[in-house]
Amino acid sequence: MALIGGGGQAFIGRVHATAGTLDNRAELVAGALSSNPDKARAAAASFGIAADRAYGSWRELLDRESELPADRRVDFVSIATPNYTHYEIAREALQAGFHVVCDKPLTTRLEDAESLARVVRETGRVLALTHNYSGYPMVRQARAMIAAGEIGTVRAVRASYLQGWLWGWQPDPDAPRGAWKSDPEKSGPGGSLGDIGTHAYQLIRYVTQLAPRDLSCQLRTFRDGWTLDDYGQVTLRFTDNAIGSISFSQATHGHLNDLSIEVDGTTGSLFWRQESPNELVLRRFNQATQTLERAPGASYMNDAGRFACRLPGGHPEAFFEAFANVYVAAFDAMLAEGEAARQNPLAVFPTVDDGVEGVRFIEQCVASHQADGAWRAMNS
Amino acid sequence: MALIGGGGQAFIGRVHATAGTLDNRAELVAGALSSNPDKARAAAASFGIAADRAYGSWRELLDRESELPADRRVDFVSIATPNYTHYEIAREALQAGFHVVCDKPLTTRLEDAESLARVVRETGRVLALTHNYSGYPMVRQARAMIAAGEIGTVRAVRASYLQGWLWGWQPDPDAPRGAWKSDPEKSGPGGSLGDIGTHAYQLIRYVTQLAPRDLSCQLRTFRDGWTLDDYGQVTLRFTDNAIGSISFSQATHGHLNDLSIEVDGTTGSLFWRQESPNELVLRRFNQATQTLERAPGASYMNDAGRFACRLPGGHPEAFFEAFANVYVAAFDAMLAEGEAARQNPLAVFPTVDDGVEGVRFIEQCVASHQADGAWRAMNS
Amino acid sequence: MALIGGGGQAFIGRVHATAGTLDNRAELVAGALSSNPDKARAAAASFGIAADRAYGSWRELLDRESELPADRRVDFVSIATPNYTHYEIAREALQAGFHVVCDKPLTTRLEDAESLARVVRETGRVLALTHNYSGYPMVRQARAMIAAGEIGTVRAVRASYLQGWLWGWQPDPDAPRGAWKSDPEKSGPGGSLGDIGTHAYQLIRYVTQLAPRDLSCQLRTFRDGWTLDDYGQVTLRFTDNAIGSISFSQATHGHLNDLSIEVDGTTGSLFWRQESPNELVLRRFNQATQTLERAPGASYMNDAGRFACRLPGGHPEAFFEAFANVYVAAFDAMLAEGEAARQNPLAVFPTVDDGVEGVRFIEQCVASHQADGAWRAMNS
Amino acid sequence: MALIGGGGQAFIGRVHATAGTLDNRAELVAGALSSNPDKARAAAASFGIAADRAYGSWRELLDRESELPADRRVDFVSIATPNYTHYEIAREALQAGFHVVCDKPLTTRLEDAESLARVVRETGRVLALTHNYSGYPMVRQARAMIAAGEIGTVRAVRASYLQGWLWGWQPDPDAPRGAWKSDPEKSGPGGSLGDIGTHAYQLIRYVTQLAPRDLSCQLRTFRDGWTLDDYGQVTLRFTDNAIGSISFSQATHGHLNDLSIEVDGTTGSLFWRQESPNELVLRRFNQATQTLERAPGASYMNDAGRFACRLPGGHPEAFFEAFANVYVAAFDAMLAEGEAARQNPLAVFPTVDDGVEGVRFIEQCVASHQADGAWRAMNS
Repeated sequence: MALIGGGGQAFIGRVHATAGTLDNRAELVAGALSSNPDKARAAAASFGIAADRAYGSWRELLDRESELPADRRVDFVSIATPNYTHYEIAREALQAGFHVVCDKPLTTRLEDAESLARVVRETGRVLALTHNYSGYPMVRQARAMIAAGEIGTVRAVRASYLQGWLWGWQPDPDAPRGAWKSDPEKSGPGGSLGDIGTHAYQLIRYVTQLAPRDLSCQLRTFRDGWTLDDYGQVTLRFTDNAIGSISFSQATHGHLNDLSIEVDGTTGSLFWRQESPNELVLRRFNQATQTLERAPGASYMNDAGRFACRLPGGHPEAFFEAFANVYVAAFDAMLAEGEAARQNPLAVFPTVDDGVEGVRFIEQCVASHQADGAWRAMNS
Repeated sequence: MALIGGGGQAFIGRVHATAGTLDNRAELVAGALSSNPDKARAAAASFGIAADRAYGSWRELLDRESELPADRRVDFVSIATPNYTHYEIAREALQAGFHVVCDKPLTTRLEDAESLARVVRETGRVLALTHNYSGYPMVRQARAMIAAGEIGTVRAVRASYLQGWLWGWQPDPDAPRGAWKSDPEKSGPGGSLGDIGTHAYQLIRYVTQLAPRDLSCQLRTFRDGWTLDDYGQVTLRFTDNAIGSISFSQATHGHLNDLSIEVDGTTGSLFWRQESPNELVLRRFNQATQTLERAPGASYMNDAGRFACRLPGGHPEAFFEAFANVYVAAFDAMLAEGEAARQNPLAVFPTVDDGVEGVRFIEQCVASHQADGAWRAMNS
Repeated sequence: MALIGGGGQAFIGRVHATAGTLDNRAELVAGALSSNPDKARAAAASFGIAADRAYGSWRELLDRESELPADRRVDFVSIATPNYTHYEIAREALQAGFHVVCDKPLTTRLEDAESLARVVRETGRVLALTHNYSGYPMVRQARAMIAAGEIGTVRAVRASYLQGWLWGWQPDPDAPRGAWKSDPEKSGPGGSLGDIGTHAYQLIRYVTQLAPRDLSCQLRTFRDGWTLDDYGQVTLRFTDNAIGSISFSQATHGHLNDLSIEVDGTTGSLFWRQESPNELVLRRFNQATQTLERAPGASYMNDAGRFACRLPGGHPEAFFEAFANVYVAAFDAMLAEGEAARQNPLAVFPTVDDGVEGVRFIEQCVASHQADGAWRAMNS
Repeated sequence: MALIGGGGQAFIGRVHATAGTLDNRAELVAGALSSNPDKARAAAASFGIAADRAYGSWRELLDRESELPADRRVDFVSIATPNYTHYEIAREALQAGFHVVCDKPLTTRLEDAESLARVVRETGRVLALTHNYSGYPMVRQARAMIAAGEIGTVRAVRASYLQGWLWGWQPDPDAPRGAWKSDPEKSGPGGSLGDIGTHAYQLIRYVTQLAPRDLSCQLRTFRDGWTLDDYGQVTLRFTDNAIGSISFSQATHGHLNDLSIEVDGTTGSLFWRQESPNELVLRRFNQATQTLERAPGASYMNDAGRFACRLPGGHPEAFFEAFANVYVAAFDAMLAEGEAARQNPLAVFPTVDDGVEGVRFIEQCVASHQADGAWRAMNS
């Protein structure tokens, strides 16, 4: 495993390092941890990366690792850099023969995302997108329950993703950290939309497997000095008249990372919330509300849910383990490449196609907002 | 107090009877409890209404009570009949000199609602609409906190009202009970929209006092055989770029009467849920989440919240008491009529103007839905 | 209905007035609301009691009401006075032919309680003790579930009753209000033990119907200046080796009226909490946790639970209604006296025998504490 | 790092392997994973342990690792074997110069525990006991808040540890897995008492730092066929009249691993629950209930809480990270040995002395139970 980016103050680099190696299936041995060569090399030690594989740039990393014998070079690179750099790094890495694990959104422009999808197909490499929330055991449990028809036909879905950290942000033109997040050139056209709205959209798609038709979006910027959206509402229409809504915010006081989803089916409803990730709530008309606690041995667990667990019930699992589950699924796909590279049906991970769809979601939301909420297609 | 309607299987008649008399400020002495004269008279005894004031129809009630001497006749009538009858009954009652307490929605047509507003003004009588959720102490607490600027400027609001009882409904042309609720002629053009969507809308308006500009709406009918909407999503735009969303459903399995609201201000956010009505959650960036428990003596309670309490903290209050608080506020207005009929600022109750706005909300939602979600004005 | 006591600053008088009349089965027509005759008469108006039945003392009330013709005099008196006066008032009222509804604890001395039990038997009158928490629908649901064996054989029970109001109390020898609560002569030997510990004990007995054997108790006084216990722990032993614990406190910061109970059976466990009274949690090994929401129409409700409801699910009921349910059950018993005075099996109310047991509980807890936790019998 | 035991079906071996290496400060390179040599060697591969360091017994491991040059041999061994083997393995490991991380309870007999404490002192090695719940950030936050006087003087503490897995256990003399847990010879004299009661006791001690005086205990066995206690209640008395209670159960249906603690101080109370580990609830009289969410940047976090975090607020941390925090603190102590081996004050870990106290707790609880609840000293 090689890590590109993540050596600064953001926590996501550590998350990749921890999650990628949690199950002892990978080892972090190389890195280009910053766009600043000196910082990149300096940061490597704290990640346990040896000096001779602490590279000054991602290009150097790809070049030098490619020169190593096959049994010594890294198998994949994890990309934890600002959004606008994903495209070039991922493309080059894939073309150099490496598998890729990449932060979302995949790219800042739809055409780049589509181009990457072609590269993935041409190279036969795996590209996994860290929509990490799809790695939670009870999210996988919910997905499998719905796929098995346990709540009937899905009619509606509501997702919400609320954060409040923007109230702690101070406008400062010199601030390096996170500055790219408010720069449309570097972050893409969506602010909170790209940062968290896409997570909510992907979660809806992953859990319900509803086919999208079109959307209408309203965006707002509530925080003075912030240049992108920090609040938004999306109405989603799916095939067969199903409907969905997404609210996302980075300007809701006191919410930390409050992603939730509720799905209405014709025979039941399901609710899950990221900050209480070990619980899935199942409701049926006239019956007691059922709280399904993550517990691999429990009677109500299905194979997908059980497969994603590492601990018995009551011993809570959380963010790292969910993130690691995306890695685990990607590892399986990397290993399976010789034999048709299919995903483990118990542990489907977000692919480059999900990445393309996520970038389209961002672009169509922005387009809808600019057209006063006009419907924009998602099914092309 | 006289009660019109409410003698059948629906529970709302008992609610009026209990809430109206909870504080011993009114006594239920007359009734026309059904549109069927025999049933009307038969039901009266179980409400403690004497036989000589158990009338066979609302017209008879108004006529006969009007003939009684002023100190014996009822002061007001409570209307708990199907929506389509509200207009005529309320109009006649007002014109006969009675105050009126009326279920929502006020009428099934906007022109009728506007006509009623004129009658209220002409007669100088009080008309209180039982948007009972505005009577909860912690809702009044929230309203007063927001009015006092305690969460800064309101930027966004999200309301949700989920029920699931429709999955217990069976299509049956002969069924009398609740049948009018699925008949647009009797219920008005909105199904769940009129039944619960208006409650959510009124709660938003009551708590935030934001001024509405326009709305976009999507409606759905998920329950086979149901003729009106049972699900909907509304995007609301207010002045000053504030935004809101409402989700309402009577087809979400296992939710009973799950009304909630969250308000985003520039210095804090507030959350309240009807099924846990004694708690109000206040959040501020970087600070501990505060749960304000209804407790008249607590340091955080304001006058409006405290004024609406009957019991010390930890001794939960609930639906009846909130409903009664609407009555109490209406009683104050009835008594104050000689002196300019102003409402008690600590206990503002929903008036005929709120009723007109609620009917406009229904009509504009339906119009927007029929125009594929086009914006419809709420500020005319 | 006549009310004795309750006219001062304590809220319990209003609770009796509201709960006793909530269902329109009784009317409050007489009162002796204070031990101070002037205050007693002055308070009556605010309770809607006519001046000619606003008495200056409880003796005057009993005398004068007894002189009224049978169809005009009150049927029962509700006693909401300090503990040390219960015995004399209740005895005299019973002997004058009135039914009695009395606050707990029944008396301050066991011999008085046993004497009262004899008077009840001799007079054939009803004495209901307002252990109001046994009136909650989901408490009755739990009792009936356990009686029907739905959680198997009960092995253990844990109850907790936490309040924190004592931190707001200030030592002041002149303070009239609540002063008797810290005076052993007036309150009885238990402080928090008698005030809330007995509620927890009665709730255990009511819900589980376990037969007590003995107990061990530790008491503490944490609030400076307070003269009675404000904290305690009791270990209870029942027949058949079942075991229980009670923690009670009036010195736990921030808890308002936090009474809860959990029962362990051989096939399931049940949990209920007074501050969320509409929910009962049922757990079984290896199965989803079930939250049974109070909802008269739901599949899981039994007759006892359903019978105690006034509103549909999701329309929360609370303290007043539970209190009123004790009254309702007592009314049924009062009406049934001619025909053997049996209680409605769906709505068992606390009787004088529960009162005797409660006073024994207090005395034995104090005795155990004074003997360094030695076991004291409860089964004699 | 070397792992002894943990190669069977129990999950605790994986926990040690994951937690010990989570922060990349240790690498698992050797193991004796079973008491059966073949199984021990077979299991090693799945832990990533090379064949040449996959030993057939713990003795072989200690011998062979000792022969390796200092820079190649393991620094410490983690002991995840049945309780009755801890003493001998730990003693031999310490005497061979290795640091030790050991599961609780430390030993099955008090004299062995005291002997180990002497060995630790003689050898100067670190022995860390995996009372992992003390590693949760909000537990450390609570400890530091209490130590700083933020809730005043501690008067009372209540802990509860409920599990229900025993209802899934089947009496089977041939069952190897977990069988030692019901054998007093192998498990020690306590069943649930030793398994989870000691965790609750240690959590009380860790959080409050109250000095114990004596205890009274009742034990029960509810599960047919189980030979040790599966339920218990303990009353604890501390110096200065403070009091505590512990309830523990492995026979409470549907609870998974439900450890909680509440501490009453003179100016506030604190509540924490293991299954919602990221939340700490602070209550003060008359003020809003405060929920402190684990969030390193939040205003309310103290150094001890912040130091134990790996992720921003809202990105939940859980069991593995808490377990790893015990390892991290032990690593710091191992590294610090040359300079007086003091613990990091921000991350105090359970030591051999806590282990001795835990074994005394077990013995005195059993002794008290056998003496019908008589007080047994804890302060000698």
